[in-house]
Amino acid sequence: MSTALLTDHYELTMVEAAMRAGTAWRRCVFELFSRRLPEGRRYGVVAGVGRMLEALEEFRFDPAEIDFLAGRGIVSREMADWLAGYRFTGSVHGYAEGDLYFPGSPLLTVEGSFAEACILETLLLSIYNHDSAIASAASRMVMMAEGRPIIEMGSRRTHEEAAVAAARAAWITGFGPTSNLAAGMRYGVPTSGTAAHSFTLLHDSEEAAFAAQLETFGGQTTLLVDTYDIDAAVRTGVRLTDGQLGAVRIDSGDLAIVARQVRDLLDDLGATKTRIIVTSDLDEWQIAALRGAPVDGFGVGTSLVTGSGAPTCSFVYKLVARAASDDPEAPLVPVAKKSSHKSTVGGRKYALRRLGPDGIATAEVVGVGQPPTADHDDRDLIVPLVVDGTVVGAEPLEAARARHQAAMQELPLSGRRISRGDQAIPTIMVHHGSDGSDAVLGGGLEL
Amino acid sequence: MSTALLTDHYELTMVEAAMRAGTAWRRCVFELFSRRLPEGRRYGVVAGVGRMLEALEEFRFDPAEIDFLAGRGIVSREMADWLAGYRFTGSVHGYAEGDLYFPGSPLLTVEGSFAEACILETLLLSIYNHDSAIASAASRMVMMAEGRPIIEMGSRRTHEEAAVAAARAAWITGFGPTSNLAAGMRYGVPTSGTAAHSFTLLHDSEEAAFAAQLETFGGQTTLLVDTYDIDAAVRTGVRLTDGQLGAVRIDSGDLAIVARQVRDLLDDLGATKTRIIVTSDLDEWQIAALRGAPVDGFGVGTSLVTGSGAPTCSFVYKLVARAASDDPEAPLVPVAKKSSHKSTVGGRKYALRRLGPDGIATAEVVGVGQPPTADHDDRDLIVPLVVDGTVVGAEPLEAARARHQAAMQELPLSGRRISRGDQAIPTIMVHHGSDGSDAVLGGGLEL
Repeated sequence: MSTALLTDHYELTMVEAAMRAGTAWRRCVFELFSRRLPEGRRYGVVAGVGRMLEALEEFRFDPAEIDFLAGRGIVSREMADWLAGYRFTGSVHGYAEGDLYFPGSPLLTVEGSFAEACILETLLLSIYNHDSAIASAASRMVMMAEGRPIIEMGSRRTHEEAAVAAARAAWITGFGPTSNLAAGMRYGVPTSGTAAHSFTLLHDSEEAAFAAQLETFGGQTTLLVDTYDIDAAVRTGVRLTDGQLGAVRIDSGDLAIVARQVRDLLDDLGATKTRIIVTSDLDEWQIAALRGAPVDGFGVGTSLVTGSGAPTCSFVYKLVARAASDDPEAPLVPVAKKSSHKSTVGGRKYALRRLGPDGIATAEVVGVGQPPTADHDDRDLIVPLVVDGTVVGAEPLEAARARHQAAMQELPLSGRRISRGDQAIPTIMVHHGSDGSDAVLGGGLEL
Repeated sequence: MSTALLTDHYELTMVEAAMRAGTAWRRCVFELFSRRLPEGRRYGVVAGVGRMLEALEEFRFDPAEIDFLAGRGIVSREMADWLAGYRFTGSVHGYAEGDLYFPGSPLLTVEGSFAEACILETLLLSIYNHDSAIASAASRMVMMAEGRPIIEMGSRRTHEEAAVAAARAAWITGFGPTSNLAAGMRYGVPTSGTAAHSFTLLHDSEEAAFAAQLETFGGQTTLLVDTYDIDAAVRTGVRLTDGQLGAVRIDSGDLAIVARQVRDLLDDLGATKTRIIVTSDLDEWQIAALRGAPVDGFGVGTSLVTGSGAPTCSFVYKLVARAASDDPEAPLVPVAKKSSHKSTVGGRKYALRRLGPDGIATAEVVGVGQPPTADHDDRDLIVPLVVDGTVVGAEPLEAARARHQAAMQELPLSGRRISRGDQAIPTIMVHHGSDGSDAVLGGGLEL
């Protein structure tokens, strides 16, 4: 399915005007970055890279799209002809999926003619702003769960397609299975699920419902025990399985207290191996608060798919360099907007994560031009994603999941906390040529 | 494209277990409702109805989906065969799109066998929770704009498909055009857009950029004037159009102050008809704060697509009645979960908006069974959407837009404020048969 109209109207009007002015083919460099993290967050997680590469390959204007655009007078006939043949022929470099980012990190660098790079703006931002917001929240939940599995079950609380992307993003950060079947089919994310309260209510008794579920899925299933009376439900579940019940799920009440009561009851009944899953409006703070509770797994919904208070990142897509003239051989010159509070740093960037001898990150180093010669243990953060129109950066989702885990290991301990604080490592924005010094940014400063 | 896997795994496991237990064909009534509004909100807006009806018609399991489900062992072969023939044959009644809702309003009532109604849960909730969250925020922005147009331009800050749905939801509440081209093509929402800062930066001077835009789109276009220096940009724009410039857009700074300065400058230059559009991180509060400023239109992005602090509704989908036994002729009996803080009211509901003699709403009246005979000016809120599997509730988007405007006129003045408060009218939950009195809920009370 074409992704070409998942685009803002003004991308096309800009290209149209630039075509007429003869400037549409100037070579350009666009950069996708953020000026800040959500308030109090210490790091962000890059997600959406694989989805972006898929969407880019489907970014073509089919006859239906052309008919709409030309028929409504949104584009001229000449522009429609150009759109009909559109294929991105430029290059994209950027951060790999699952890695961390900070204010000023150049997550994507898109090179091509103004026309071909400009019209990707909205689609690239949509994918990155959504998926990275989910992954950034999810990563904090995984940290707080300290190895206990988290089931992603937020599909019902977000747009039906955003739900699929959210399940994918959560998996990258170390979540367990998702409830979302489309995420299983499209991306291979493991799926799981057992029963809702409606299943218990459908039957003539809770015992009848439990018996039906156990008959179909065996004793290792998870029984939802809070439809009527938790104590009675736990006893019924244990009795029906001769104490071999896999797990119980609790979806209401004060989870720390109820989990303790259920654990004691299960142990009293001899069901010492029955696990306890809790699922009621959890977020990273609730998960942290349940550290001392006998909880074996979490289910997280609303807070995951809404980014736990930060439902979008603040990524922008800015022109940072362009050909100095219409001459095809013209050199690139850096450009930047000058208005207050929203200034950008012109030029094509490199990015390195500076690591100490212990392998712990000390800074995000971003600069224009070529990276400095390695007198530090720097990790180059930029990988090729698209080269001359060909996607080269596709990878299995497991690679992003492994990368995220590795990147988290590089974070200083102070960065691995959910309390509000400054960014975990400062962004060093290297400005060459002025006074020779590096500008150090961080702690919530805007670029 | 099939929507059938935009579904939680547990819907299928429940149906599978119910099939084996022989309870899957019991006639059931599910209800979609919310126990509360987002904190401080006075009303909610129903959106997603039309999208739900389209998604329902595409809810079928094609061979690819069946292969995935059976191949992964998510469903049995028997269940796969049933899914392959799945078509919803039941009925859906509910609130019409664009109308208002309150805690306890039965937005959807879905009747069918347990199997066929259960597996729609996730998809229905996803669509309603997203679209209604956007519409509920959008409606407040339209109120505060007091007739001045608001352009929807949030696509880049949300999932690329959620963006299309958000543009549609905003249009229902009275927004002006959207930037989103797919919303134009799919739903007929008017689209608009002119240029970003990159267009100015592409050119050798701001004047060259403005000239290119004016050459292509004429003097009635909107020039973005804050790339370098606003004063100089406004003068350039006026000069190039001999004072006939359509509009200028300001995207940074203290908008109330800057808009006043720009208005004075435009008037000094004789461009008294040039309009001023502002677009920097606006929400309903910012729009209200700009009431006294010489602003002719707004562009709203992030806060619209993230629901202005409430990115999802808290709609749930609960079994409220089922056949008393497996007998096909068995009567329906109300059912309800009993756990603390999440109790539901069993039974199939009616819903009326009680209106005073002045046409102003005084209560949301919800009860089980048949509505009371009309000794009030009640407006019946429930319309048929699907009857015996056939969609009957489809309508042009303009109908929802008109309905929203009419429903807002019914709200008491105290409900048409954006400050935090109680729900605009109380929900009266009519319980028949106990002590004869009605239970009145409202003011943030949970049902």
